[in-house]
Amino acid sequence: MNPQTREKLTKVSTATLCTALFKRGLRNQFIQNVHPLNPALPNMVGEAFTLRYMPAREDLNPITVFNDRSHPQRQAVEQCPEGAVLLMDSRKDARAASAGGILVSRLMKRGVAGVVTDGGFRDSPDIAKYTMPAYHARPSAPTNLTLHQAIAINEPIGCGDAPVFPGDIVVGDAEGVIVIPAHLADEIAAEAVEMTVFEDFVQQQVMAGRSVLGLYPPTDPEVAGLFAAWRAAKGR
Amino acid sequence: MNPQTREKLTKVSTATLCTALFKRGLRNQFIQNVHPLNPALPNMVGEAFTLRYMPAREDLNPITVFNDRSHPQRQAVEQCPEGAVLLMDSRKDARAASAGGILVSRLMKRGVAGVVTDGGFRDSPDIAKYTMPAYHARPSAPTNLTLHQAIAINEPIGCGDAPVFPGDIVVGDAEGVIVIPAHLADEIAAEAVEMTVFEDFVQQQVMAGRSVLGLYPPTDPEVAGLFAAWRAAKGR
Amino acid sequence: MNPQTREKLTKVSTATLCTALFKRGLRNQFIQNVHPLNPALPNMVGEAFTLRYMPAREDLNPITVFNDRSHPQRQAVEQCPEGAVLLMDSRKDARAASAGGILVSRLMKRGVAGVVTDGGFRDSPDIAKYTMPAYHARPSAPTNLTLHQAIAINEPIGCGDAPVFPGDIVVGDAEGVIVIPAHLADEIAAEAVEMTVFEDFVQQQVMAGRSVLGLYPPTDPEVAGLFAAWRAAKGR
Amino acid sequence: MNPQTREKLTKVSTATLCTALFKRGLRNQFIQNVHPLNPALPNMVGEAFTLRYMPAREDLNPITVFNDRSHPQRQAVEQCPEGAVLLMDSRKDARAASAGGILVSRLMKRGVAGVVTDGGFRDSPDIAKYTMPAYHARPSAPTNLTLHQAIAINEPIGCGDAPVFPGDIVVGDAEGVIVIPAHLADEIAAEAVEMTVFEDFVQQQVMAGRSVLGLYPPTDPEVAGLFAAWRAAKGR
Amino acid sequence: MNPQTREKLTKVSTATLCTALFKRGLRNQFIQNVHPLNPALPNMVGEAFTLRYMPAREDLNPITVFNDRSHPQRQAVEQCPEGAVLLMDSRKDARAASAGGILVSRLMKRGVAGVVTDGGFRDSPDIAKYTMPAYHARPSAPTNLTLHQAIAINEPIGCGDAPVFPGDIVVGDAEGVIVIPAHLADEIAAEAVEMTVFEDFVQQQVMAGRSVLGLYPPTDPEVAGLFAAWRAAKGR
Amino acid sequence: MNPQTREKLTKVSTATLCTALFKRGLRNQFIQNVHPLNPALPNMVGEAFTLRYMPAREDLNPITVFNDRSHPQRQAVEQCPEGAVLLMDSRKDARAASAGGILVSRLMKRGVAGVVTDGGFRDSPDIAKYTMPAYHARPSAPTNLTLHQAIAINEPIGCGDAPVFPGDIVVGDAEGVIVIPAHLADEIAAEAVEMTVFEDFVQQQVMAGRSVLGLYPPTDPEVAGLFAAWRAAKGR
Repeated sequence: MNPQTREKLTKVSTATLCTALFKRGLRNQFIQNVHPLNPALPNMVGEAFTLRYMPAREDLNPITVFNDRSHPQRQAVEQCPEGAVLLMDSRKDARAASAGGILVSRLMKRGVAGVVTDGGFRDSPDIAKYTMPAYHARPSAPTNLTLHQAIAINEPIGCGDAPVFPGDIVVGDAEGVIVIPAHLADEIAAEAVEMTVFEDFVQQQVMAGRSVLGLYPPTDPEVAGLFAAWRAAKGR
Repeated sequence: MNPQTREKLTKVSTATLCTALFKRGLRNQFIQNVHPLNPALPNMVGEAFTLRYMPAREDLNPITVFNDRSHPQRQAVEQCPEGAVLLMDSRKDARAASAGGILVSRLMKRGVAGVVTDGGFRDSPDIAKYTMPAYHARPSAPTNLTLHQAIAINEPIGCGDAPVFPGDIVVGDAEGVIVIPAHLADEIAAEAVEMTVFEDFVQQQVMAGRSVLGLYPPTDPEVAGLFAAWRAAKGR
Repeated sequence: MNPQTREKLTKVSTATLCTALFKRGLRNQFIQNVHPLNPALPNMVGEAFTLRYMPAREDLNPITVFNDRSHPQRQAVEQCPEGAVLLMDSRKDARAASAGGILVSRLMKRGVAGVVTDGGFRDSPDIAKYTMPAYHARPSAPTNLTLHQAIAINEPIGCGDAPVFPGDIVVGDAEGVIVIPAHLADEIAAEAVEMTVFEDFVQQQVMAGRSVLGLYPPTDPEVAGLFAAWRAAKGR
Repeated sequence: MNPQTREKLTKVSTATLCTALFKRGLRNQFIQNVHPLNPALPNMVGEAFTLRYMPAREDLNPITVFNDRSHPQRQAVEQCPEGAVLLMDSRKDARAASAGGILVSRLMKRGVAGVVTDGGFRDSPDIAKYTMPAYHARPSAPTNLTLHQAIAINEPIGCGDAPVFPGDIVVGDAEGVIVIPAHLADEIAAEAVEMTVFEDFVQQQVMAGRSVLGLYPPTDPEVAGLFAAWRAAKGR
Repeated sequence: MNPQTREKLTKVSTATLCTALFKRGLRNQFIQNVHPLNPALPNMVGEAFTLRYMPAREDLNPITVFNDRSHPQRQAVEQCPEGAVLLMDSRKDARAASAGGILVSRLMKRGVAGVVTDGGFRDSPDIAKYTMPAYHARPSAPTNLTLHQAIAINEPIGCGDAPVFPGDIVVGDAEGVIVIPAHLADEIAAEAVEMTVFEDFVQQQVMAGRSVLGLYPPTDPEVAGLFAAWRAAKGR
Repeated sequence: MNPQTREKLTKVSTATLCTALFKRGLRNQFIQNVHPLNPALPNMVGEAFTLRYMPAREDLNPITVFNDRSHPQRQAVEQCPEGAVLLMDSRKDARAASAGGILVSRLMKRGVAGVVTDGGFRDSPDIAKYTMPAYHARPSAPTNLTLHQAIAINEPIGCGDAPVFPGDIVVGDAEGVIVIPAHLADEIAAEAVEMTVFEDFVQQQVMAGRSVLGLYPPTDPEVAGLFAAWRAAKGR
């Protein structure tokens, strides 16, 4: 991943990124119904690395399966690259956990950029204190074996109804998580930075009392000049 | 809106108001499944002003529609009266936003009393810091154009399964939002203030160790005297 | 309830308890979709005492029903034993409240260990400040009479899709609530304490940089020795 | 149950009965989301007899529990009175069956008037051929033990969000099932018969080309006379 | 509406129409989750005429409201033009009816082309026997007043998550209902007829044993000739 | 697949198979919420062959993708072995189709045993007339490209919350579809045949007036003899 792109994406919001993708006809890249366990952390940015769960069959999911070091859940935690984001397809089912505190702390320690499930995490009060961002639908204490069998690593998946391909660029903020197709990441990041500058200007104008009509979008011819002046003054 | 009524409604809870409406046969005035982005703000009180969304048809909702200053979403933000509450019928669909930080800050700057959607807001981390109350179902980064087309201003709508008529009196607290039919607002406000005095007394009695039996409701003849004495002592 | 068991259960997580129950073939003991109103409180531990709601029929649920001191909701609040947990079967319907601040404070004052509904509480901002744990699905201002009729005390019930028998041992933490069958409580508590010691060791190892492979579960022969040494050093 | 009332209720629709109950302030007596397995059967009419299910705990629900002849599911099937309707509270969960063909045929053989669950039946293709009406949400092959434990007989329950008290009068037609409070059954039945006569007249008028305005309801003064004449001609 | 277009639309399927709309970027025109009460009827084709429901407030919806001949539900039934389709926005809530047999028969008698609700009809067993197509989510006996207040006629609405503008062209078959934007109707109808001819050819080829690869779509150069010959032979 | 096993499975119900699996601790093998388009067909029996869908990304799913003969949806239809059942993981999302009439008829023509999706089929009125069984959640006219991208063939998947591994044995009847782990198929089939004989006997006894107590299960010592005699008489 382009380091400038990574840097840019740490400074823009998922809302702005959604709009940039919408302009290109991509309407379903926001992961539905997940939120950060700790909304105070900085943006999460990284390449997508995936884990797919299927429904658990009871005879294949006794507690002893983890004695097998090749178990996909454990392998995903050890293989997810530094700087990447681990996204889990838990079929939007938070009735059992997708992972718990120990695995999430291992990801954090390995330098992974963040972790997302469209199900739930267990040990969520602990995970909420970690410095690595984690996103889920809701806390869920039952072990994953109760309902979920980790079955495949780094396949294309769905996560919260969004399509995720390995290598896509994933960004999370306090609002949620968005998946940017890999080939668009550089241009989307650049555009989003520009949009953010303009939106900051608009916000300042609104707080100064200006109507949104003619300002957002800037159909009033005067606005272009005001923006240029503001931008120069701010050095952005 | 009667200023005394407004004042009274800043000091009572939506729970108390629900009970006052229940006594009059109104069971569905609480907006289901919305919560405040900032639960620490004081009560929101104002007349209902509405915006209705319908499902977005793609050809009618490119990003350029906002170049039209008469777009209903933008008009709603500029027309909603000072002191009113803007309620949005988003068909309980939070997969795309109903509005974002810039529009909400414009409402705030214009002196609007608050904003409610039965969908979601984008830029929700920003909105959570505003001094104007905002209520939604969950954060939602995608632009409204993704799924919602603003179609009509100040019509009767549904919001979170509650009926809302323009001019109804809307009250929000840290628990949620209730819609009081306009013609009942004065009497409901007065009754709710009285109920609150009694409930504060009951709460004090309970914390002093008294059983709820005979106290709440006060079927024990002794309670009337205790309450009168407490009320006199408190000057309420 | 065995006091040692109670003490042990204050120090373990619902996640650990879920795993201990999973090992015994019990997969559905976690109450789905409830959370604590105040996640900062210590663990809730107590025997289950239950209240069952059925759908309210309008003619049987005017506001005056509470004049009857034998109303099951009020009786449940007065009868729930000290140290027990009151669990309410609200049919997972949070559109009206299961109880409010006054009743919950009465439970607290009476020394009840906590209260759980698979619906919602009203006066939730107040309840969130109490020192007795309370768990629900979401805030709900409407009085219970709107949708719920309290019909039976201390029957076996469902709560958040979990089976609850009176006398079961209930534990809540910041993640949620689990129901331990009464006859298993002592052994589950003892096992969970042991599991917690090991998991604390694992967490420390992970934070020191060790892979989860071979460590969790400890299939690497070296781990047993490391754990014994750590345990001795920690005096656990 | 009054035999005339039973007779009347075989000839009116659940829609008409809903309206008669609505006029008395009862809005929630229609069992939501169930349908007849065989819509061609005549109306089901009988007193309510109930069975309550709670979530199944695995250790209490092996296949061997049915060796116990006092098991509540089997007892319900043997105890439900002739002419009554067995209603099952399955917590609206059709992922496992509430009962199957053998038990339903035993009910039929015993002269029971019908059976309703807000979950699902197994052996539904067989049950659809029986002469006793059965209503459910959808077919469900898994044995009830998978998710449901029969726990209590003839308690007040919820069924499809409707309140059901033992002895209430239950009526089912091709549209669904309604629960009439016992004390209202006679007057509701009489009123529904009258309403049906008028609606048949209205339908005939509509098919003859008359507008519904002034006819339904009959605010046009002419209609009373037309109806009287029609009624006389039809001998109803 | 162009009579040729109407004629063409009686002979194509909603599936084919969905694909023609998909090619133009319109993905949400199929009304979700409704089905015909009588799937044996011919296609329903007509211009959209709409009725919007909002949640019912109890004091505004006693049974006597229908004494007012200007009530929007009754007016909609009398005003809907001959040859049009009446679509009702019932907020996807089938817990109470959108209309019943008498009103639907009045629509039929007036020459309306069909009726659609994203809620439910009462008297559904009768409506299923009518010769005018009707579509809903499920049968629902309670009168509309229980939950729905008819509030506006011929506004743009949502119906089953599809956008509906008055004058759009609506087509229903045994599978469901699709809404074609008015300005596209002629070209979509023409294209759908052509697609249907080709799909009939493909189906015939498949039944004769040909692989879909190269045939559907016809990337195999041979197919064009086969199709031309088939078409000539069939005279289509 | 063992031909005797296949033969046996054509004669037993999914309900009986569910119970046989339940006895072995397998509770989630019934595919939830699907039904046959034509319930009059004989049992569907075959080895599982799978197709996995992920959410569609718009730029990857124009109508032209099918020009690529290696598209997984088309390949699945051509590769699924004769006598197998094609199961599609559509993430329980029936808002767009999983496949349509042409592909399903190609499967039929190729000798495939049946097709199942936990979403919906388009051209469902046609498919309902085919002689090959098809199961879905509900009809859905929009092309799969609208929401679903076929991404992988013959992986382990979830279908209607049931785990499916390629090669598992799939049985469908008028009630629904069950997935039997491959290694258990022979013994489950044999056991189900025996259970069916006994259940037929029980049904005959019940219809002759016998109580289910002591009969089902046969705890009454007399029943064994009756059954043996019945079995001998029937030659089963």
